[in-house]
Amino acid sequence: MGLHEECGVLGIYDFDGSHVAGMLQTGLYALQHRGQVSCGIVTNDDGRLHQVKDNGLVSEVFTEKNTATLTGNIGVGHVRYSRADDLPENAQPLVSRYCKGSLTLAHNGSILNVKELREELENGGAIFQSTNDTEVIMHLIAIARTRVRSVEQAMLTVMKRIEGAYSMVLMSPRKLLGVRDPQGFRPLAIGKKGNSYILASESCVFKSLHAEFVRDVRPGEVVLIDRDGKLQSFTDFCGKTPSLCAFEYFYFARPDSMVDGQSVYQTRIHAGRLLAQQHPAEADVVVGVPESGPHFALGYSYESGIPYVEALIRNRYAGRVFSEESESRKEATLNIKLSVIESAVRDKRVVVVDDSVVSGTTAAAIVKMIRAAGAREVHLRIACPPFLFPCYFGTEIPPKKDLLGVKYTPAQIGKRLGADSIGFLPVEKLAELGLTKDKNCTACFTGEYPVQMN
Amino acid sequence: MGLHEECGVLGIYDFDGSHVAGMLQTGLYALQHRGQVSCGIVTNDDGRLHQVKDNGLVSEVFTEKNTATLTGNIGVGHVRYSRADDLPENAQPLVSRYCKGSLTLAHNGSILNVKELREELENGGAIFQSTNDTEVIMHLIAIARTRVRSVEQAMLTVMKRIEGAYSMVLMSPRKLLGVRDPQGFRPLAIGKKGNSYILASESCVFKSLHAEFVRDVRPGEVVLIDRDGKLQSFTDFCGKTPSLCAFEYFYFARPDSMVDGQSVYQTRIHAGRLLAQQHPAEADVVVGVPESGPHFALGYSYESGIPYVEALIRNRYAGRVFSEESESRKEATLNIKLSVIESAVRDKRVVVVDDSVVSGTTAAAIVKMIRAAGAREVHLRIACPPFLFPCYFGTEIPPKKDLLGVKYTPAQIGKRLGADSIGFLPVEKLAELGLTKDKNCTACFTGEYPVQMN
Amino acid sequence: MGLHEECGVLGIYDFDGSHVAGMLQTGLYALQHRGQVSCGIVTNDDGRLHQVKDNGLVSEVFTEKNTATLTGNIGVGHVRYSRADDLPENAQPLVSRYCKGSLTLAHNGSILNVKELREELENGGAIFQSTNDTEVIMHLIAIARTRVRSVEQAMLTVMKRIEGAYSMVLMSPRKLLGVRDPQGFRPLAIGKKGNSYILASESCVFKSLHAEFVRDVRPGEVVLIDRDGKLQSFTDFCGKTPSLCAFEYFYFARPDSMVDGQSVYQTRIHAGRLLAQQHPAEADVVVGVPESGPHFALGYSYESGIPYVEALIRNRYAGRVFSEESESRKEATLNIKLSVIESAVRDKRVVVVDDSVVSGTTAAAIVKMIRAAGAREVHLRIACPPFLFPCYFGTEIPPKKDLLGVKYTPAQIGKRLGADSIGFLPVEKLAELGLTKDKNCTACFTGEYPVQMN
Amino acid sequence: MGLHEECGVLGIYDFDGSHVAGMLQTGLYALQHRGQVSCGIVTNDDGRLHQVKDNGLVSEVFTEKNTATLTGNIGVGHVRYSRADDLPENAQPLVSRYCKGSLTLAHNGSILNVKELREELENGGAIFQSTNDTEVIMHLIAIARTRVRSVEQAMLTVMKRIEGAYSMVLMSPRKLLGVRDPQGFRPLAIGKKGNSYILASESCVFKSLHAEFVRDVRPGEVVLIDRDGKLQSFTDFCGKTPSLCAFEYFYFARPDSMVDGQSVYQTRIHAGRLLAQQHPAEADVVVGVPESGPHFALGYSYESGIPYVEALIRNRYAGRVFSEESESRKEATLNIKLSVIESAVRDKRVVVVDDSVVSGTTAAAIVKMIRAAGAREVHLRIACPPFLFPCYFGTEIPPKKDLLGVKYTPAQIGKRLGADSIGFLPVEKLAELGLTKDKNCTACFTGEYPVQMN
Repeated sequence: MGLHEECGVLGIYDFDGSHVAGMLQTGLYALQHRGQVSCGIVTNDDGRLHQVKDNGLVSEVFTEKNTATLTGNIGVGHVRYSRADDLPENAQPLVSRYCKGSLTLAHNGSILNVKELREELENGGAIFQSTNDTEVIMHLIAIARTRVRSVEQAMLTVMKRIEGAYSMVLMSPRKLLGVRDPQGFRPLAIGKKGNSYILASESCVFKSLHAEFVRDVRPGEVVLIDRDGKLQSFTDFCGKTPSLCAFEYFYFARPDSMVDGQSVYQTRIHAGRLLAQQHPAEADVVVGVPESGPHFALGYSYESGIPYVEALIRNRYAGRVFSEESESRKEATLNIKLSVIESAVRDKRVVVVDDSVVSGTTAAAIVKMIRAAGAREVHLRIACPPFLFPCYFGTEIPPKKDLLGVKYTPAQIGKRLGADSIGFLPVEKLAELGLTKDKNCTACFTGEYPVQMN
Repeated sequence: MGLHEECGVLGIYDFDGSHVAGMLQTGLYALQHRGQVSCGIVTNDDGRLHQVKDNGLVSEVFTEKNTATLTGNIGVGHVRYSRADDLPENAQPLVSRYCKGSLTLAHNGSILNVKELREELENGGAIFQSTNDTEVIMHLIAIARTRVRSVEQAMLTVMKRIEGAYSMVLMSPRKLLGVRDPQGFRPLAIGKKGNSYILASESCVFKSLHAEFVRDVRPGEVVLIDRDGKLQSFTDFCGKTPSLCAFEYFYFARPDSMVDGQSVYQTRIHAGRLLAQQHPAEADVVVGVPESGPHFALGYSYESGIPYVEALIRNRYAGRVFSEESESRKEATLNIKLSVIESAVRDKRVVVVDDSVVSGTTAAAIVKMIRAAGAREVHLRIACPPFLFPCYFGTEIPPKKDLLGVKYTPAQIGKRLGADSIGFLPVEKLAELGLTKDKNCTACFTGEYPVQMN
Repeated sequence: MGLHEECGVLGIYDFDGSHVAGMLQTGLYALQHRGQVSCGIVTNDDGRLHQVKDNGLVSEVFTEKNTATLTGNIGVGHVRYSRADDLPENAQPLVSRYCKGSLTLAHNGSILNVKELREELENGGAIFQSTNDTEVIMHLIAIARTRVRSVEQAMLTVMKRIEGAYSMVLMSPRKLLGVRDPQGFRPLAIGKKGNSYILASESCVFKSLHAEFVRDVRPGEVVLIDRDGKLQSFTDFCGKTPSLCAFEYFYFARPDSMVDGQSVYQTRIHAGRLLAQQHPAEADVVVGVPESGPHFALGYSYESGIPYVEALIRNRYAGRVFSEESESRKEATLNIKLSVIESAVRDKRVVVVDDSVVSGTTAAAIVKMIRAAGAREVHLRIACPPFLFPCYFGTEIPPKKDLLGVKYTPAQIGKRLGADSIGFLPVEKLAELGLTKDKNCTACFTGEYPVQMN
Repeated sequence: MGLHEECGVLGIYDFDGSHVAGMLQTGLYALQHRGQVSCGIVTNDDGRLHQVKDNGLVSEVFTEKNTATLTGNIGVGHVRYSRADDLPENAQPLVSRYCKGSLTLAHNGSILNVKELREELENGGAIFQSTNDTEVIMHLIAIARTRVRSVEQAMLTVMKRIEGAYSMVLMSPRKLLGVRDPQGFRPLAIGKKGNSYILASESCVFKSLHAEFVRDVRPGEVVLIDRDGKLQSFTDFCGKTPSLCAFEYFYFARPDSMVDGQSVYQTRIHAGRLLAQQHPAEADVVVGVPESGPHFALGYSYESGIPYVEALIRNRYAGRVFSEESESRKEATLNIKLSVIESAVRDKRVVVVDDSVVSGTTAAAIVKMIRAAGAREVHLRIACPPFLFPCYFGTEIPPKKDLLGVKYTPAQIGKRLGADSIGFLPVEKLAELGLTKDKNCTACFTGEYPVQMN
C-alpha cells in the first residue's frame, strides 16, 4: 500500500473485421490497477485517427456514445498514474503528425537521460507541449524517420539514444509496434485472438478478452505487426542481462498475470511461506492487508499452519474519494476504507501481513485498528525487504529521508508502528522467489543498479 | 450474488457542538453496500432544513461544497437500492412540512398493506408525489399528529395501521426517532459517541465513526432522542415473536456488523463449516465467490482441511459500469468483473463456495471460467438453502418461475450449472447457525411466513 | 430592467398523431423571457407520465436524449423565475397522483390567501413537499375531486376558495385544462394548429409553432380539451371587472405578443410617443436601454423627430453569468453586459429611454457610461410611472424603502441618477395607452388594488 | 448572417500589481462575438504558466474556481470560431516549451504558405499535435530562436517566411508581444490602463476594461512590452500597402469598435445611407436583420425618411442550441431564433436590410416570415456587394458553387429569395465608405487580391 507505477499500455491490430475500441476498453479495465488518473484510446480507421482521452477511470471516461466514434481496426490504449507535478497535457496515448502521417505512442517507464535529450532537441529548435518522456521519444522517432526507411528502423535508431525503462506501443498509419527496453524493466506481452494481435502490459488482459497468451516481448525486442497480419521481430537490442522490476511481483502486477514466465500469485504465496520460515510467530490467526496482503498472508498460513482469517475488509465504495488525500488525513480516512472484523481478532494474537512499508503511516494505523478491535498481540510481517534506495525506473519511491528502512532498524520500525514484533523478507531470500540479479532489478532493496548511474 | 435489499438508514443527534453532516457522510460510506442507486442527507440547523440528495454513490453525490451547506446538529441519511420501476422522486430521506413544522423520514423495508392505505388516503383527498411506502407513512403520521400530542405518539398510532417490515429514522424539528417494526424484520441499532446518539441500520457504522455500540433497537420499539440528550423508549408494540430476515446474515449485512447480537462474519464461517460437514468433497482447493463467498469458503476450509485459495479476483474498477446490465450481457461482462488465477486452480479439484443461487446465470459462468482455467473438477457449495418462496418484506427474490430451486432438484441444478457436484446448506441446519423460528424469518426457504398472508 | 415575473405556462393536446414534446420545447423557447431559472416538461403517453425538469435554460435542460423519453400526445411545460428563497423542489410542472390517477399542474401567479389555505390543509393532516402555491392548489383539487364528478368541476370548486392571480394549465389522465383567475391578472391564450390545441401564457408561442391564435382565455374562465378534441368553456367565474397586470405591456410580455387583444409592441411605441409629448427634450439623439427600452425610444423618436440611434449594445454572451450578482457588483458587471457606441453619442445631447426605474442602480450606471462616451447632456425618460406600491399578484417589486419613487420627487431622482433631466410617463396617461381601471391592474403605480386587501 | 471569422486575441501585461486573469476574462467577453466554440487563458506567474482552455463560451469555461488558479501578471487570451474539420487540440492559446522556456501564442488569421512550411518542418523531423497554423508558427519561432538573441528577433525572422493574414499575441517568460502581418489583414490594437498594456483584436475591449485606446498596431509592426513596462516597436516589415479586411466593418467587428481609425458603427450607418441612395424603395417601414442589420437599416431610414421599426426580434435564449444545425433545419429553427412583430409590418411595404447574402437560405426564410406576418411587399437591401470570390485570409466564404452572386444576377437573386425587389451596395461605392484599395482588401467582392496568388 502506498507505491505507484505509472502506466499500463495496450495495442490491438484486428484482422477479423472488427473495430478494436470495444476490446481496448475491456483490456483497459484489466489494466486499470496500473493507473487510475487518466486513460485514453486512439483508433485508426484506415489512416483516420479517432481519440477519447480524459481524466478519470475507464468506467467514467468511456461512454457508449464516445466509444461509438472510435472506429477502426488498429488501436492503442493507456491508463496513467499521475504524479503530483503532472499536467493534463501529459495524458496518453500521445498523438502527433509527422513526415509520414500520424504516429501514436503509449508509454510505460522512465527515460534516464531524458533531460539531456530534451535539451539537445530544444537547442535544435524543437518545441514541447507536455513534460512527459513520451513526447521526447516522439520527437526522436520523427527525426530518425527522416533518415531511415521505416518506423521500425526509426524506433531502433532511437533505442540507441534512450536509456532507462520503457515498454511502449506505437501505431503508425498501417503498423502496430511493441517495444521493450533492452533490460526489460517493465513487462510487455503478446496475445492473440483469432488472427488479431494484442500487445499489453500484463497477461491478465488476454484472459479478459478470451485471447491466448503468446509470449512476453523480449527485453530489447521490437515487435511489428503490419497489415499482412504477420508479426515480425527485431532483436538488435536483445541479449543484455534483463532487469525486470522485482516489485511488479510484490505490488504492481495483477495476481492473475504471468510476468516473464512467472506467476504473480504463486510468487506472493511463496513469499508468504518464506516469511513464515524466516519470521515465525506465536499467533492464533493470520490477516492480510488488502489488496495484495491476503496472498502473502495465505502463504504465511500454509507454511505456519496458523489459520488464515479475512478480518480486514476494504470498503469498495470508498476508493476514489481519498485518492489525493493529504498525509494528515490518511489515518482518519483509513477508517472509511478499511474495517476490522472484531469477532475474528478479539483476544487473538494476530499476524498482519502487508506487501511493503513506505512511510509507515498506514501500517501504524492498521496496527492500531486491530488492537482497538481487541487483538492481544499484533505481529507485522512485510513481504518484501525494506526500501533503502531510490528508483530511477518509474516506481515512485519517496525520498530517502522518508524511508523508514533507511532511518531505523527493523526492530525500531516495529516499535514505531506499534507492533509486538516485525519481520521483513530478508533481501537474500529474493533469489528463492526467482528474483535474481541476472533477471531482475532489486535496486530499491539492494542499491545494486542494473545500469551505471551518474 | 444477485439479490438486493433496498436501503440503509442513519440518524445522528449531536450534543457535542458539531455539525452532523460529516459524520453522516462517513456513516453512509459504511452503509453503501445496502444501496448504491441514490443517497441523501438532510440536516436540521435549529429548525431550518438543508438537504443533498441525488442518484449516485456517496462518493459521487457529496462534495466538499455541497456538504458545507449541510449545517445543523441533527440529521438523517439514506442509501437506496432502486428497483426497475423506481423513480427519481422516490429518493430518500423524504422531507415534508406538516402542521407541526418539518418531518424527515428515512425508511428501510416493505409495508404489506400499503395499497389499501394509499387508496384510503387518496379517497380522503390526499396527493402523492412518489410511489414509495415512505410517503404513505408520512401522510399517516401527519394525520395522526392532528389528534395526538407528539410525533412519537403519532408514530405509535401509525404503527397500529401499518403491517410488514420497516426500520425507520424520523427527524422532527427537535427530535430524532428510531422505529423498528414489531417483528424486527430489518435491523436497526443504537450507537453513542460522547453525548451524541447514532441510529443506524448496521453496527459497522459505529466503528467507522469511532462510536460505541449501545444496543439493537428492539422489535416493535420506538426510541426517541430529544433535545435534552436523553434516549426514551416506547415499547407498546414490543413482545411479538421476532422475525429478523435470515438472509441479512448470508448476504445483506457487512461481515463486520453484529446484527441482533450475532456476528455476521462468524455466522458465515459457521455456515461454511456446516456445509463441509453436510457436503464434503474430494478436492484440492476451496475458493469463495466475492463478496461474501470467501468467508463461507474459509469455514469450509477450516472444517474440511482443504486449503483455501484466493483464486477468484474481483476487478474493483468494474463495479459500477455493469450495474444495470441486461441478463444477456451478464456472462460477457463477468469476464471484466471477475478473473480466475489460473496457477491456483490448474489441474486441481476445486470447491467453489457462493452465498446463494438465484437464476444460476452467474454461477454457471463462474463454473465455466474455472474449468477454462484448467480445473479438473468443480464442486459447487451454496451457503444457504435453495430459494423456494417469494419475500414480501423487502428482499427482491425473483418470481417463482425463475427460481432454480422450485423447478429442479439440487442434483439437476448442479448439472445445469455445469458442476461436478453441488451441495446446499440443508434447511434444517439453519437452527444450528442460530437462525430459528422464534427469532428469524426464513420464509424464502421454508414458506413459513411470520405473518398471516392473504 | 430589474423586475421579474415568475412564470410561463404551456399545454398542448395533440390530435394529429404526434408526440407533443418537440412542440412544447419550441414553445418554451418562446416563453423563456418569463423565467430563466428552471424549466420542465411533463408528457402523458396514454396515462403514463414522463418528465424532465431541472434548473437551467430550455437550451440547457432539454437534450436530444432526454426529450426522446417524453412520449405522449398531451403535455404541460413551464419556465420559472425563482426568488431568493426558492427551492429546487418548487420546480414545475408539479406532478402528483391522487384518487383519479395523475394530475399535472403548471402555474403562473400568486395566491393571496395561500397561508390560510395551507394552515387549514395542514390542520387536516396534509403534508407539503414544497413551498409553492401550486402544491396548495393541487391539494385542494384532490380533496374537491373526492366530492365532485370531474376534474373540471373540482377546479371550479377550488376557484371558490383561492384568491389572487393565477393562470394555470392542468393535465389529468385524459384532459387538458386552462384556467385564468376571475380578474385575469396574468395572461393566458388559446392557439390551434391543425386539430391540436395549445394553451400558452403568451401568443408569441403560437407563431413559433406555426399555429393560429384563437383567442385569450377569459378572466375567470376554465377551458377544457378532452379526448374528443373539443374545447369546452366553463364561465361560472367570468364577469368580474378584469385586472390584467399593466406591467405585462411595459416589461414582461414579448413585443410580438398580443395580450388581451392589445399589441405589446404598439403599446410600447405609443408610450414612447406620450413620453415625448409630456417630457420633450432639446436633444440630438434618442437611445433605448435593451431589452424593451428601444421600442419606447422609437416611439419617442417618431413623435419628437429626434433621430433614433442604437448606441447601447447588449453583449449577448454575457447574460447568464451575472444573473445572481450582488447589488454591489452590478455596476462593474454592467460594463460587460452593455456597451456604448461612442461615435453615436459623442458631443451629443442624448435622450435615454428605459422601461422603468426600480432601485436606480442600473440607470445611474448607464447615465455614467453615456457621459463617459462623450455625451454633452443625458436626459432620462422612463416609460412607466414611478413604482409607489407593492404588488401582491406575482410581480416582485422591492420593499417600499427601496423604491426611489416613494422617497424622492422625479426631479430628485433625476439628480440622483446623474441625469440632466428626467421624465416619467404620467400616471393619468395610462388610460391613453388603453390601460384602464376597468381592464387593468395599475396598483403598483396608483395604490388602487383591484381586490380588497386586508 | 452566415459568415465567420476565426478568432479574437488578447494579451495583458500588468504593471500595477494585479493578476491579469480577471481582466482577461472581462476582455474575452468583449471579444466573444469573434468566436464561440472554444476559449482559453494562459497566465504567467513569474515564469510559471497556468492555463484554462475548453470548448464553450467564456461564461461557461471560466468559473470562480478555475479562474482563481490563473495567477500572474502577464497573460494571453483567445476566443475561437471552429470550422467543421477542427479538432479540440487546436484550442488556443497554444503553449509550448522551447529552448528559452515557455512560449504562448494566440493567433487570428490564415497563413497562405502553411502547407509548404509544414512539409519543410516535417521533413526536418518536426512533429505536430494539432492542425492549426499557430503550431507551425511556434515551430518556426523556436527554430529561429536558436540563432538569434531574442524572441522578438526570432519573430521578425519568422515574418520573412510566413505569408498571409495574422494578428498575434505572444508571451515569453518575461515579455508580451503583439504582431500584425505586413498588410494588416486582421485588426490589432493597443490599450493602456494605468501602467498596464493591453493588446486586443478590437478596441471594444478597452472600454469594457475602463482602459484607454492608445493606437492600432501598424501593419507589419511588432510591438514588445518588456518587464520594464516600456513598449518598443519594430517596424522592419512596415510600409507595404495595407489591406485590412473590408468585411470587418460589415460583419465581424463589434459596432462600438474603432478599427484602424474608422468607426464600425458609422461605417454601417453610412452604408445604409448609400444603399438608400442607390436602391430607393417605395415603402412604409425599414427593418434590419439582427445582429448587424439594424445599423444599416437605421442609415437607410435616415437617408430615405422611411420610418425605422424594430420588427425582427432575436430570441436571446436560442442562440447556442442551433449553432451547428444542418442546412436543412435552418428554416425550421429560424422560427425559434427570430420573430416578426406582426403589428409593425401588417399591410405595410417593408424594406428589409441585412449585412450580406451567402447561400440565401436565411434571407429567403426571413422574407417568408415577414410576408406571413402580413407585409404587402418585401424589399431586400443588402449592405455589401455580392460575394464573388473566395477568401484566403481567414473569412470562411463558401465555395464558388454555393455563392448566389456567382450564379445569378441581382434580379434573379431577389426572385429566388422571394423579394419584390433587391439591391446590393454597388462595389464602386465601397470607396465612399473609406474602404479603398490602398487600405483594404475587398477581394471577395472584386477578385483583386492584395497578394500574388499562385
